[in-house]
Amino acid sequence: MDVHDYMQERIPLVDVLLEKLVPATDEAPKSLHGAMRHLIFPSGKRFRPILAMAGAEAVGGSAQDALPVAAAVELVHTYSLVHDDLPCMDDDALRRGRPTVHIEFGEAVAVLAGDALQSLAFEVLAGAANGGNAAAVSLALRDLARAIGSRQLVGGQVDDLAYDSLAGDVAAIESVHARKTAALIATSIVGGARLAGASDEQISELDAFGLEVGIAFQIADDLLDADEEDICSIAGALGTEGAAARMNELLASALARIEDLGEPANPLRELARFAVQRKA
Amino acid sequence: MDVHDYMQERIPLVDVLLEKLVPATDEAPKSLHGAMRHLIFPSGKRFRPILAMAGAEAVGGSAQDALPVAAAVELVHTYSLVHDDLPCMDDDALRRGRPTVHIEFGEAVAVLAGDALQSLAFEVLAGAANGGNAAAVSLALRDLARAIGSRQLVGGQVDDLAYDSLAGDVAAIESVHARKTAALIATSIVGGARLAGASDEQISELDAFGLEVGIAFQIADDLLDADEEDICSIAGALGTEGAAARMNELLASALARIEDLGEPANPLRELARFAVQRKA
Repeated sequence: MDVHDYMQERIPLVDVLLEKLVPATDEAPKSLHGAMRHLIFPSGKRFRPILAMAGAEAVGGSAQDALPVAAAVELVHTYSLVHDDLPCMDDDALRRGRPTVHIEFGEAVAVLAGDALQSLAFEVLAGAANGGNAAAVSLALRDLARAIGSRQLVGGQVDDLAYDSLAGDVAAIESVHARKTAALIATSIVGGARLAGASDEQISELDAFGLEVGIAFQIADDLLDADEEDICSIAGALGTEGAAARMNELLASALARIEDLGEPANPLRELARFAVQRKA
Repeated sequence: MDVHDYMQERIPLVDVLLEKLVPATDEAPKSLHGAMRHLIFPSGKRFRPILAMAGAEAVGGSAQDALPVAAAVELVHTYSLVHDDLPCMDDDALRRGRPTVHIEFGEAVAVLAGDALQSLAFEVLAGAANGGNAAAVSLALRDLARAIGSRQLVGGQVDDLAYDSLAGDVAAIESVHARKTAALIATSIVGGARLAGASDEQISELDAFGLEVGIAFQIADDLLDADEEDICSIAGALGTEGAAARMNELLASALARIEDLGEPANPLRELARFAVQRKA
């Protein structure tokens, strides 16, 4: 399989749904809906939605099965970026070469757009429940809520704000990566698999896979910035070579965890390799 | 029945659950968990949780049935207060006589605490799903997500930021009240009723009841501030007497909508009268 083709085929599936879900910019309050859409369109890599679809396929389901989770994780990821960029957080004026949401729409609307993106994620997912799958949807929803809560994503973000205190402490830095990045990546994969009827054993394998891939993905990000002087990154703590070794160790461990899923999990394996070993 | 006794008996039920759900202040990140708890404890009126319990009782269920919804609506209400108080929004330094969350814990942690309170609400509710009630839980969850989304609470808050432009426009002001206040009040009642097995007809009566009570409740708030000079309130637009008349008209209409629920809905009726006609 070609991982680029795989992604390009699946991006439009989630984009069609996102286009329908997020109110149009001409619906009042226009500033709010414009702000909600600002980072969602034009389409980005949709990495988390694609992982959700690959998670469904890995347990014998279809990309279609995973769509409510795919849309929900993209909405949640977008909300976290909007709030991360705020002046009181990372204070970023640019993202992907464009003004950040608070620069374009003001700080109040940026906070509120993030808030509404979060609830929209849960609305989408809850709305996918029907007679047969309500239990699986509830579990996917609970996983997602946990993955972005104070013990995971938001807690990781708080510790990331105190970044300087982590210098050189590999375990502490990996704990931030695990909570801030890996928990949502694992939940994307697991949520897709849940909607495709995965067994408890498959869920626990995919969850462990996702957590290790997520941390490796974050180390890869650090390495792309190639900044050994940033002593608060894994690359800073272990050196470039040490960080690359740690990243590859995590990837290998992750891949071993899903060995028994066989051929249907090939897209997931390729996506993990691609995400971790990408050069840009 | 005595409405004060009714409330005092039910507050501890939701408080015990909230105490268990929100991580303790000695769990890391401590600032985040402290900020999440800051407005939740000590216990306030718990108006929305009590409405959820009364909603369950109105359709023949128990207060216990409604507890996951009761906790969720209080968490969501608290998140919205934390974000409303932020410098970029209402910029309030005090709430209930204490420093607001961003004054006490800083702006970044206040944004993140609000974010985590929102997701915790959905986590609680999704976690209440079991074999029998997963469909009802999914509906309550979808209702809650909608009630706080861009078409309801958050949209109302955006329009409220442009408050001055509403001067004298009763329909526009009531639209803000409907979205910013009444949608969550209606969802509290309806969610409690859903978990108690309400019929579709009962749900739609309770929803209409909740929306009118919610707007009346907000007019009552305006009247307590007794500020006819605030031309952007209903009291400013209609005068004190006109606003009181409008408030009582809404209350009467709301009560008529749930006439056929009979005696089990008495607590709900008394709570509505109490909330609208309170003197402080």
